[in-house]
Amino acid sequence: MTATPTITAFAASPDEGAGLARDTRVRWALEEVGQPYDVRFLSFAELKEADYLAWHPFGQIPAYREGEFELFESGAIVLRIAETHAGLLPTDERARSRAIMWMFAALSSVEPAILDQQTAVLVEQHEPWAAQRLPQVLERLRGRLGQLADALGDRDWLEREFSAGDLMMIEVIKRVEEYGILADFPTLAAYVARGQDRPAFQRAFAAQKAAFAQSQGN
Amino acid sequence: MTATPTITAFAASPDEGAGLARDTRVRWALEEVGQPYDVRFLSFAELKEADYLAWHPFGQIPAYREGEFELFESGAIVLRIAETHAGLLPTDERARSRAIMWMFAALSSVEPAILDQQTAVLVEQHEPWAAQRLPQVLERLRGRLGQLADALGDRDWLEREFSAGDLMMIEVIKRVEEYGILADFPTLAAYVARGQDRPAFQRAFAAQKAAFAQSQGN
Repeated sequence: MTATPTITAFAASPDEGAGLARDTRVRWALEEVGQPYDVRFLSFAELKEADYLAWHPFGQIPAYREGEFELFESGAIVLRIAETHAGLLPTDERARSRAIMWMFAALSSVEPAILDQQTAVLVEQHEPWAAQRLPQVLERLRGRLGQLADALGDRDWLEREFSAGDLMMIEVIKRVEEYGILADFPTLAAYVARGQDRPAFQRAFAAQKAAFAQSQGN
Repeated sequence: MTATPTITAFAASPDEGAGLARDTRVRWALEEVGQPYDVRFLSFAELKEADYLAWHPFGQIPAYREGEFELFESGAIVLRIAETHAGLLPTDERARSRAIMWMFAALSSVEPAILDQQTAVLVEQHEPWAAQRLPQVLERLRGRLGQLADALGDRDWLEREFSAGDLMMIEVIKRVEEYGILADFPTLAAYVARGQDRPAFQRAFAAQKAAFAQSQGN
């Protein structure tokens, strides 16, 4: 990699530094591989401006830039980092495909169920029907988390060694920890804690937290 | 690749051969690269059996096997096919990352909005609150499709040439065509039609349709 990459993040993250925004997963990947990076902080208004939409058509964070080369989608960015550095994917090509498989599983089979729960409790919570719908949402989410817990079993990581697949899965499922949902899946709660004990995660978390504090003038 | 790969599909697809099940995207990828494949057809009961769950922990189709090597997640399977054959990813490594980016965009930024609409109209449609909630679901979906249409612009494909990213995006957005939703986005409707005009798609579609017909004794 020739240029120090730049990622985008919220100027003032709505989670107030809890590390739930999707820049954290990219920061974590960069920390795992020891790649320094710059951050461009964006207001909500800036996310919707034409020049940012030309970089990230969905107007979200994170986006990623290496010199003239641009990406968006946290999955694609983490995979790019993993493919251009050692440390996040096994070298054996089949084991590598399995690790990437878990990235897709996190983003397309687990995160949608979590997004449904987050929409129900954060966006739709004042709708007259919100309380009626929530049990079905939680049932679907718990079903998926139960299948994931069965797949993890009593292992430390989803495959033999920690990979970008674990990084993404942990980043996805940690979002429901605050609702007490992971408490019903103790092996998943332990899995999240195991990932978050990694020094690279700690550095990523501290960096996003410091950015929020700075945005508040602290 | 040493062994002919096997994929799994529904013994009797609930879409009755309309090509909306996720084996179609894998069949399409295999047809694009000219890789013959076998299909193992599974009943709904078989999807929940322990030996299948050991292969695909979420108990869904498609799963994929090459000899002893197993994968699940349509994104991971299509990427595996694209990485082990020519024709679905550019050779330039940055263009390749952009193509993979669109696979992630399809599966983690577009498909969740479509899944929400599909849940609303297929799973929750008899709930007393379904009609109240649907407009919000459609508004979110239309917002995302509008952003995608802006990103596509007047080009034929999302990047310079057709890739696994287009294959996945077309497979994802075609699911709302029958609800008249794509009619509001004529460039996306034309994009879907352009993908489906490809001979490889036609072969994939015919194969899944023939499988459904055979399951009905036709």
